Amino acid sequence: MTASIADLANSYKNIRLHSVSICEPLEIEDYVVQPIGDVSPPKWHLGHTTWFFETFILIPHSPGYVVFDKQYNFVFNSYYETVGNRVIRTDRGNLSRPSVADVYRYREYVDNYLLDFLASHAVSTEVKTLLELGLNHEQQHQELLLTDIKYILGHNPLFPAYSNQVAEEAALGNADWLSFSEGVYEIGFEGEGFCFDNELNRHKVYLNDFEISNSLVSNAAYLEFMQDGGYEDFRHWHAEGWDWVNQNKAKAPLYWHLIENEWMQYSWNGLQKLRPEQALCHINYYEASAFASWKGMRLPTEAEWEVASGSFQWGSRWEWTGSAYLPYPGFKKVAGAVGEYNGKFMVSQHVLRGASVATPEGHSRNTYRNFFHPKLQWQFTGIRLAK
Amino acid sequence: MTASIADLANSYKNIRLHSVSICEPLEIEDYVVQPIGDVSPPKWHLGHTTWFFETFILIPHSPGYVVFDKQYNFVFNSYYETVGNRVIRTDRGNLSRPSVADVYRYREYVDNYLLDFLASHAVSTEVKTLLELGLNHEQQHQELLLTDIKYILGHNPLFPAYSNQVAEEAALGNADWLSFSEGVYEIGFEGEGFCFDNELNRHKVYLNDFEISNSLVSNAAYLEFMQDGGYEDFRHWHAEGWDWVNQNKAKAPLYWHLIENEWMQYSWNGLQKLRPEQALCHINYYEASAFASWKGMRLPTEAEWEVASGSFQWGSRWEWTGSAYLPYPGFKKVAGAVGEYNGKFMVSQHVLRGASVATPEGHSRNTYRNFFHPKLQWQFTGIRLAK
Amino acid sequence: MTASIADLANSYKNIRLHSVSICEPLEIEDYVVQPIGDVSPPKWHLGHTTWFFETFILIPHSPGYVVFDKQYNFVFNSYYETVGNRVIRTDRGNLSRPSVADVYRYREYVDNYLLDFLASHAVSTEVKTLLELGLNHEQQHQELLLTDIKYILGHNPLFPAYSNQVAEEAALGNADWLSFSEGVYEIGFEGEGFCFDNELNRHKVYLNDFEISNSLVSNAAYLEFMQDGGYEDFRHWHAEGWDWVNQNKAKAPLYWHLIENEWMQYSWNGLQKLRPEQALCHINYYEASAFASWKGMRLPTEAEWEVASGSFQWGSRWEWTGSAYLPYPGFKKVAGAVGEYNGKFMVSQHVLRGASVATPEGHSRNTYRNFFHPKLQWQFTGIRLAK
Amino acid sequence: MTASIADLANSYKNIRLHSVSICEPLEIEDYVVQPIGDVSPPKWHLGHTTWFFETFILIPHSPGYVVFDKQYNFVFNSYYETVGNRVIRTDRGNLSRPSVADVYRYREYVDNYLLDFLASHAVSTEVKTLLELGLNHEQQHQELLLTDIKYILGHNPLFPAYSNQVAEEAALGNADWLSFSEGVYEIGFEGEGFCFDNELNRHKVYLNDFEISNSLVSNAAYLEFMQDGGYEDFRHWHAEGWDWVNQNKAKAPLYWHLIENEWMQYSWNGLQKLRPEQALCHINYYEASAFASWKGMRLPTEAEWEVASGSFQWGSRWEWTGSAYLPYPGFKKVAGAVGEYNGKFMVSQHVLRGASVATPEGHSRNTYRNFFHPKLQWQFTGIRLAK
Repeated sequence: MTASIADLANSYKNIRLHSVSICEPLEIEDYVVQPIGDVSPPKWHLGHTTWFFETFILIPHSPGYVVFDKQYNFVFNSYYETVGNRVIRTDRGNLSRPSVADVYRYREYVDNYLLDFLASHAVSTEVKTLLELGLNHEQQHQELLLTDIKYILGHNPLFPAYSNQVAEEAALGNADWLSFSEGVYEIGFEGEGFCFDNELNRHKVYLNDFEISNSLVSNAAYLEFMQDGGYEDFRHWHAEGWDWVNQNKAKAPLYWHLIENEWMQYSWNGLQKLRPEQALCHINYYEASAFASWKGMRLPTEAEWEVASGSFQWGSRWEWTGSAYLPYPGFKKVAGAVGEYNGKFMVSQHVLRGASVATPEGHSRNTYRNFFHPKLQWQFTGIRLAK
Repeated sequence: MTASIADLANSYKNIRLHSVSICEPLEIEDYVVQPIGDVSPPKWHLGHTTWFFETFILIPHSPGYVVFDKQYNFVFNSYYETVGNRVIRTDRGNLSRPSVADVYRYREYVDNYLLDFLASHAVSTEVKTLLELGLNHEQQHQELLLTDIKYILGHNPLFPAYSNQVAEEAALGNADWLSFSEGVYEIGFEGEGFCFDNELNRHKVYLNDFEISNSLVSNAAYLEFMQDGGYEDFRHWHAEGWDWVNQNKAKAPLYWHLIENEWMQYSWNGLQKLRPEQALCHINYYEASAFASWKGMRLPTEAEWEVASGSFQWGSRWEWTGSAYLPYPGFKKVAGAVGEYNGKFMVSQHVLRGASVATPEGHSRNTYRNFFHPKLQWQFTGIRLAK
Repeated sequence: MTASIADLANSYKNIRLHSVSICEPLEIEDYVVQPIGDVSPPKWHLGHTTWFFETFILIPHSPGYVVFDKQYNFVFNSYYETVGNRVIRTDRGNLSRPSVADVYRYREYVDNYLLDFLASHAVSTEVKTLLELGLNHEQQHQELLLTDIKYILGHNPLFPAYSNQVAEEAALGNADWLSFSEGVYEIGFEGEGFCFDNELNRHKVYLNDFEISNSLVSNAAYLEFMQDGGYEDFRHWHAEGWDWVNQNKAKAPLYWHLIENEWMQYSWNGLQKLRPEQALCHINYYEASAFASWKGMRLPTEAEWEVASGSFQWGSRWEWTGSAYLPYPGFKKVAGAVGEYNGKFMVSQHVLRGASVATPEGHSRNTYRNFFHPKLQWQFTGIRLAK
Repeated sequence: MTASIADLANSYKNIRLHSVSICEPLEIEDYVVQPIGDVSPPKWHLGHTTWFFETFILIPHSPGYVVFDKQYNFVFNSYYETVGNRVIRTDRGNLSRPSVADVYRYREYVDNYLLDFLASHAVSTEVKTLLELGLNHEQQHQELLLTDIKYILGHNPLFPAYSNQVAEEAALGNADWLSFSEGVYEIGFEGEGFCFDNELNRHKVYLNDFEISNSLVSNAAYLEFMQDGGYEDFRHWHAEGWDWVNQNKAKAPLYWHLIENEWMQYSWNGLQKLRPEQALCHINYYEASAFASWKGMRLPTEAEWEVASGSFQWGSRWEWTGSAYLPYPGFKKVAGAVGEYNGKFMVSQHVLRGASVATPEGHSRNTYRNFFHPKLQWQFTGIRLAK
């Protein structure tokens, strides 16, 4: 932790501004809705990230700080049991108040206080650490804002575009196999900068010989799987995945629509023809595994991915790995509320590696462990094969 | 049907304006949310009532009419199977678009067209009938707007007030019993004005001797029932009602909150102390029946209510009757889509009579048959006893 | 209540024996299962009817009576809140114990005690009344035994027959219309024998002119409705019924199977070709109403049915009426647990009149009010049209 | 695969007989019920294991074999999509037929055929492999029979004992820590005998220094956790586990009952006082993890467990590990239906190692990978701590 206060204050301003700029194209109505439980209303993200700084920095560390509104702890707490009761997750879209204007006032209020606080106090290492965590937390919510906005607009029968200033496409080079030899490798974070607790400890793993593709799977390749009856053949699927296919009548990735016999794809730019040569997006772990099985291959483990990651390009899609999300050897929860950040989710989730077109700049590294439930498709997820 | 075109056009303008004025105190966010399936977002009500005029009058009867937006039929159809697919009811609150501004533009577009149409064409009796139905339909949605807005704001943890320009209170006079002798009576609509199909035919019924209260049940009387253990004693409840009590841990009417040992009630004016002398509100049929049973009395039938209605004041609360919602002798569905208006709901509902503080002026009569499922509390409902 | 003790004891023996004889063709396994919540395991019916006599007669009225097993109150109470906790209804099929042999021992124990009690005590009018109620209660469960056994065997993939000693068929004569003139009529029970509380008070009703068929609807007539697209045309259905059709993909009455393009029907005698000329069976209220609507007619009210019942044959099918199940004028619940018998179900149910091939001899009269939820098909239900 | 035909035939007879002997204490009714979806009726286990031999050996490999009953494939297929439609899992307890006697006849029929087949044919290696798999499969169902019988009787309000000839208790020695040094180890099956596909390939893993207890956790130790508020303190639980606690109001292991302030435990021998010194049983993964967290320790990984397993006693409880159930390096599914045996469950499950008091003799080894969903408690599960 060597960042200067001035640097931290600067980061704070830039990162906080970026959240606002993501929401700039929205109508007020778009800030409010929650079409499924996993998607939060944009105004909730804006409030919740602000609440994080207020709750973990200003209230405990800035004497005399007056909370903006006592009810906001109830409204904007996400899952911190330590910090008290909260609106249940699926009710976030039922709240018309606080209004969007109120939430922006809340952001401004906390920002002013926090920047004043940084300017006028001797800031402890503990606070610096919390600040860095809060900024990384806000960056995670920037990615969620972009995925949730896509879901909200992409599930509206009018299919409004989000923006033409951003693009989801990811061109793919020629696919090739990279080979790695068996032996002891090290994975996990090391060095000076920020990392999440789940990236520690750096530790040794034993890997067998493996090959990994230098390229992601394309829409065209996935179409081939579909046309070969991939969604109708149970042999490629986990039992749980096959149940998911049948219950949801799944036939294609999320956001794909067969309209007058042509595959269309909804993106931030609206509904457009599917571009076969681009990287596949929005498949869940069941689909990624089924595709790999159909190819007679498999997904890489997260250790394989990390070891190989220097040899290929990554960052446009979160890549499903075959690894369940579990603690590394020597993993320790931090004491207090921020200890709830990662550890309590270490069951029934799969690890994704890399980053995506929705990940903010400066928020990715090859030791980053993203994780989601195997059934979820709404993140910008893709497939890299191994064998 | 004797109203002149000029009168109808005038009614049209006034009634359409009244819907807009109901929404005047709202924030844009308040137009969007749907906390439970029975509550629709205010912008949906505004769009749906407009869609009714567009679909049943302008499209079939105004040659050359260009629909405002082809997708709106999908978005704003409520339950008319005849008219095609529609957004499922519980998804209304998941739609951020059309925006509130779009909906107001839609209203203006349809209003201009329709008033032009009325001014420039020989208007058939069929269209007059549809127009009158559309206006009564809009008035029903004005009441729903007021009940739904109350639910949206009253279930927000911040308890924002809707307006101080309107009041829900209903003072009660001295309670007394009115006696009626057994014999043949007539009920159902007769005369020249508008009525819904479910108020026909006027027909004879045989009533036994009965007594009916000239006054509604007060908050104080209901508190007595609660304090006597009314919600804990299965003997007063229907089996289905007792299940409802237990599943919902019901302990009081909707909008009542016990805060620091004091009963508070949320109303359009915000959260305030309960006023015991006022008329009880927001109980469902199970609660109304249980209260009556606890008193050793019963609810009146709809025929008793109608026969007696000239002898007491009514109009502040919809009054649960002991009658199921069934067709009158000789009831006939109209042909076509508007035939779906009432008849298809004639199972598993109970009749409410009277009107409420949310009912628009000019939209009540003593033959009006309102109906809801026995479990619903969110309307402005009350109790009148009989024996 | 004029039956002598000897007559009552005799009735007791015969009725109790009849329940046992109904179960005679069963395998032990058939006594145990509960494929849906509405169907109870046969051994539960045998235990529950025994519990009724033990609980309401022997325990309170026979000094020194020792209960057979203290746990049985928990196991065999159906819905009497007054009498304490009970196994939840949908768990009845999860209990392998008490075994079938235990239940028969329980029956024998209670029968011996009760017959001794009748023989050796001065039996009060109260006890006589309870005994008569208990016998009528057992007869109701004899009908349920036959409907539930049919469901258990008829939903087994092996389609085992129940018995060839009984038949469900009901031949139909020539259909004709019977006309009745408007005026005041009386309905409800009067006279000396037994009736349920819900058949009282006998009271006057006003009926309009009506016509009612002297015959039930045949399988052939219903097939015509199906072939005319009856299950695909929402216009004939209540909104709630249309939801039921779609959620259940309903296409035909219960127990009808289209096998190699031929309609088969499961009956007590096994799976056989549908016989078109026989009376239709196993439709719910939604289906009965939809059929009547398709014919341009309606179902009779329960008052019309009762007034006309002397002019036609009835008794092979429970006939859905258009009347909701509500209290008659002057209806009073009995005090104590048996007061829970009927009144608490008077919401959200429809009345059926007549009797069925499953009704035991001596248990039908034209004032009998049977009632079920509109969605239920598993009783032996049929349709009689009115207009 | 070196077993002789005579040995195999002998094993077949003994193993098949053992399944029957497990059911010997049951009443016929106990064979039928299915109180929760995870528990299958005993007669289903007896039929299903028979169906396995019929379907995978007799039908494809014994020319002229006549199936016992064509419908049984529908009734007794568990989850093999390859082999056609089947009764949905939660409906197994709704089937009274085939009767228990039918199922025993089915067993006898298949046993006779299969033993004849073995005696009179040159048996291929493929068939030998299938036979060995079928016998191991039957042994797995022997364990399930014992866990399911316990559930069926232990959830009956009469709490009948299963048998006094078997005992669940497991005495514990003095607890001590065993230390292992970091380095490369090998795990997975090697050698000549039978193993499941999921135990392959044997492969190298890198382990860090670790300590593992030589003893299981006792009832007394778990009681301490409970009395220290373990079920009320979210900090020890996974988020998913905490939801489970709250939704199920979990307060103790399965089969523990607090009766008149004393902890009782239901076992095969009936309801008895809890014995604190015995090994804990019937906790799920959430509970095991929460207990470990409360102790400031963790569960071992499956690799640690296997490496250390030579140094401690195991076999009385299935021991939850911290490892998700995933394929080993080089894992391959077998072609055809038996390829569905293990691989398709490799998501959302946790690995358990060891064996239990319900595991049949000769069916355990230290490379065996058992797996269940983290929420399940009904197996004979226990806890061994690591750090």
